[in-house]
Amino acid sequence: MNATRTAILLIHCPDRKGIVAEVSGFIHQHGGNVLHLDQHVDFEENVFFMRMEWSLADFDLSLESFREVFEPLARRFEMIWSVEDSARRARMAVFVSKQPHCLYDILSRQETGEFDVDIPLIIGNHDDCRHIAERFGIPFHHVPVTPETKADSEREQVRLLEAHGIDFVVLARYMQILTPIVVDRFPLRIINIHHSFLPAFPGARPYHSAYARGVKIIGATSHYVTAELDAGPIIEQDTIRVSHRETIEDFIRRGRDLEKSVLARAVWLHLRRRILVYNNKTVLFG
Amino acid sequence: MNATRTAILLIHCPDRKGIVAEVSGFIHQHGGNVLHLDQHVDFEENVFFMRMEWSLADFDLSLESFREVFEPLARRFEMIWSVEDSARRARMAVFVSKQPHCLYDILSRQETGEFDVDIPLIIGNHDDCRHIAERFGIPFHHVPVTPETKADSEREQVRLLEAHGIDFVVLARYMQILTPIVVDRFPLRIINIHHSFLPAFPGARPYHSAYARGVKIIGATSHYVTAELDAGPIIEQDTIRVSHRETIEDFIRRGRDLEKSVLARAVWLHLRRRILVYNNKTVLFG
Amino acid sequence: MNATRTAILLIHCPDRKGIVAEVSGFIHQHGGNVLHLDQHVDFEENVFFMRMEWSLADFDLSLESFREVFEPLARRFEMIWSVEDSARRARMAVFVSKQPHCLYDILSRQETGEFDVDIPLIIGNHDDCRHIAERFGIPFHHVPVTPETKADSEREQVRLLEAHGIDFVVLARYMQILTPIVVDRFPLRIINIHHSFLPAFPGARPYHSAYARGVKIIGATSHYVTAELDAGPIIEQDTIRVSHRETIEDFIRRGRDLEKSVLARAVWLHLRRRILVYNNKTVLFG
Amino acid sequence: MNATRTAILLIHCPDRKGIVAEVSGFIHQHGGNVLHLDQHVDFEENVFFMRMEWSLADFDLSLESFREVFEPLARRFEMIWSVEDSARRARMAVFVSKQPHCLYDILSRQETGEFDVDIPLIIGNHDDCRHIAERFGIPFHHVPVTPETKADSEREQVRLLEAHGIDFVVLARYMQILTPIVVDRFPLRIINIHHSFLPAFPGARPYHSAYARGVKIIGATSHYVTAELDAGPIIEQDTIRVSHRETIEDFIRRGRDLEKSVLARAVWLHLRRRILVYNNKTVLFG
Repeated sequence: MNATRTAILLIHCPDRKGIVAEVSGFIHQHGGNVLHLDQHVDFEENVFFMRMEWSLADFDLSLESFREVFEPLARRFEMIWSVEDSARRARMAVFVSKQPHCLYDILSRQETGEFDVDIPLIIGNHDDCRHIAERFGIPFHHVPVTPETKADSEREQVRLLEAHGIDFVVLARYMQILTPIVVDRFPLRIINIHHSFLPAFPGARPYHSAYARGVKIIGATSHYVTAELDAGPIIEQDTIRVSHRETIEDFIRRGRDLEKSVLARAVWLHLRRRILVYNNKTVLFG
Repeated sequence: MNATRTAILLIHCPDRKGIVAEVSGFIHQHGGNVLHLDQHVDFEENVFFMRMEWSLADFDLSLESFREVFEPLARRFEMIWSVEDSARRARMAVFVSKQPHCLYDILSRQETGEFDVDIPLIIGNHDDCRHIAERFGIPFHHVPVTPETKADSEREQVRLLEAHGIDFVVLARYMQILTPIVVDRFPLRIINIHHSFLPAFPGARPYHSAYARGVKIIGATSHYVTAELDAGPIIEQDTIRVSHRETIEDFIRRGRDLEKSVLARAVWLHLRRRILVYNNKTVLFG
Repeated sequence: MNATRTAILLIHCPDRKGIVAEVSGFIHQHGGNVLHLDQHVDFEENVFFMRMEWSLADFDLSLESFREVFEPLARRFEMIWSVEDSARRARMAVFVSKQPHCLYDILSRQETGEFDVDIPLIIGNHDDCRHIAERFGIPFHHVPVTPETKADSEREQVRLLEAHGIDFVVLARYMQILTPIVVDRFPLRIINIHHSFLPAFPGARPYHSAYARGVKIIGATSHYVTAELDAGPIIEQDTIRVSHRETIEDFIRRGRDLEKSVLARAVWLHLRRRILVYNNKTVLFG
Repeated sequence: MNATRTAILLIHCPDRKGIVAEVSGFIHQHGGNVLHLDQHVDFEENVFFMRMEWSLADFDLSLESFREVFEPLARRFEMIWSVEDSARRARMAVFVSKQPHCLYDILSRQETGEFDVDIPLIIGNHDDCRHIAERFGIPFHHVPVTPETKADSEREQVRLLEAHGIDFVVLARYMQILTPIVVDRFPLRIINIHHSFLPAFPGARPYHSAYARGVKIIGATSHYVTAELDAGPIIEQDTIRVSHRETIEDFIRRGRDLEKSVLARAVWLHLRRRILVYNNKTVLFG
């Protein structure tokens, strides 16, 4: 989008006077040119949120120094904050089961540069998608999961993720529930796609439930994985109309398009550091 | 739409060979010209559904005679069926509480001819909307409801509905739960608008629940009222995207537009006899 | 939404370093607490846009003084800017022809407080909607328009608008093209609703054109009126799917719902001072 | 979807009494069980349209015999009609230029069985997508096109298509305009995806035009290719909202998702014989 290297600052803190003035003053004083500023106050909770992106062209601090020099100001406002260099390329792992549509979609986006990310490995609890990984030249690891071996399998997953320096994980229609063995190691760093409009139809076979209930619209939801099933912070959702002429098979077929695009948008937002999580909800900066 | 008087036949029955041929042959043989035929088979349930509309211009049977002459064919296929003259004007009652937006919307549609219906009365459990009814020249009945008087109030509602020959009732953001005293008298003839994308967020304060859950899309659902709260056959739904910048007040304000249009579409479908209910689901003929 | 009185500042200027820091510092220094800040840079044009809203509770300047004291800073950055008190109630006129649906929708929103606005008069080139105006207690002026009398009629319209201190005009399916006699007096202060997805199908009978072209989606567009027909800055648009089963009459009927909600959203955005116009385009602050 | 072999009959003819009765009687009499019947009358044009699908399980005619035996009835009603065996697998060619997203999408749908189709070849005017074709094991033909060689190139394309027994062609963001050399050989058998909501922004660079005009919604359109550029019968369209924060690059990126799904739906409808073309418009049977 933007050839210049930029820094991205995410902040939330109790709302008070003067936060924008102080922070933008600080950036300005060090030579940073603010390119995007998106600020928001949740008046229900009295919480201030801000995403600020500035050019590093004339900025006189390295991000390491920034972290140090900015800390007193941050502490004064009781900020929870992070700063990142937009040029740093994240490392993403993909988990799959048997269905390949989300995997294909992700890999083609990565290859064509839409996702500026490295994918050092793909993990499948089945071996079905191996040939797809191989076509794209990405190592595929088959880690079978049975009720008896689940804990061991998850420890193996964690080992692989850590060995490859993975930043975050995308569950591309991975049909296993992850336990804290994995989830606690990657808090707010595992993105799932659920094939319903949550909170309607959590859990298994949501298209069948939607059909049985006779809804006129079906949906898909991407969210961060937390301990509770399908209850993590929602990142993105979308819906389409269905008619009485459509069967469950039609729901499944048409739903795949929703799943692909909703998951892809969540990954994109995550990669661009546009997501801030607060109170089990996401703030998505425009 | 169509100046010619038409008959509308709704059928469902076990699926078998030859139903379309027999029924369309019957209509043709009596001089009816089929204008619309919408047929559908639910292969999960093996049920055949059909809506047929034909011109009465050269039809050689009155609908009374039709009902008699068609019965043997209908019995042979074990049909559940109904036939109606599209020119018959239905009589609709509207129930309201304090919020007027759906009421205004319905009355303006009726006045401008979009709803071809008579509205002999409006019933409110509060008196707030009386002046609106009066502006449109429609009698308003204030029937207060308290926990103690609820049964009596509902009997009074039924009395009013029956005294006015009401065919069906529209709950235009009526904030009381109806008991079987009313519901059993008007089976599949009470249309409600619920301000969420059911089955998500049934019951009270759905916008607050949607806000708390952090959904990215809100919705509205119109459905026929049954004994179970917000669980009747869904007629129509719609959704809109919301952003983190929006407050609960924004959800409520923007949701009103959904409520108005979703309720209006359900009423329109009901008036046009386009809804067939089966297994707590609706089949909506295009 | 917000009980506290607020000021709303809209700015656009060539993009430069330090604008946010300077402006937010200025507001902070005078005791203003920023509630909303939405900033945006158009990198194609190198233009900086900002909407800032702050509480006037502890602000130490009147808006009159603000205008004076802020001017040097504004001049330094070559800003085009305006500031308004959100509590000031705007005065809106509505123009109608024969179709009442948008008028009903606007008046019911105004009455129920969704539109925080005064409506001192409604002007119709036909007399058909007079009874609606009267129901809501708003003076109705019948100003007939014929090709011969058009200029005189428009001068009469301007006279009425000015006599009533009107801030902006809403064309609620007003079927006449306005000439510069009116348009030049109310630059970017006349909002029209066009019944197509512009720039497709400008001009007359867009539903008929959409039907003839066989589109699968129809739309509506609200925009500010400029000298060129249906070519002013677009404020809001929306679309719905249509099917081959639908006639032109269905398009017209279903399109009315779009027209109502799209026009209403444009009016709401205008009232909330969320619209900034630049290069014949609108920037809509969230 | 449906394991049983079926026949699909598409008809249009002047509307008259008794068509449904005659045709469904004919099918019934030969042992066919109607699974889907979708009938429609265009009252503007007085044209009758019908799609009928029936099980061939107990049908006593081959499709060859059917074509003969049905002809007298068809002639009597002046029908334009076709019948096909749903089990016959179509042969599809894909044309590409440099952008691979639609190609990836199509190939993954084909591989996973969503598209029940053979793809004997892919033709590119550039060589960029060859590696993608090879990954999926599909022969890739590089047929360069320059203004001077265009006619020769198109003759080569036609030769390849005919040599491979191609039924229809999908232009997957193929950036060349086809002349009658190709178009006349494949009437209503070339499907294009245009990256705008037609008829808005035909021709080159529609996202740039959409950005310049300041629309709030962008779209994509799939249509059959005819002699006139971007003016063929529209098969499918879809739209998404955009905001002032989005750049042309965002339009392009988000538009790709629309292009993929809109093109895929058009291909699916074509494969299922759900499209009937009349008066440069499509009738899409549900």
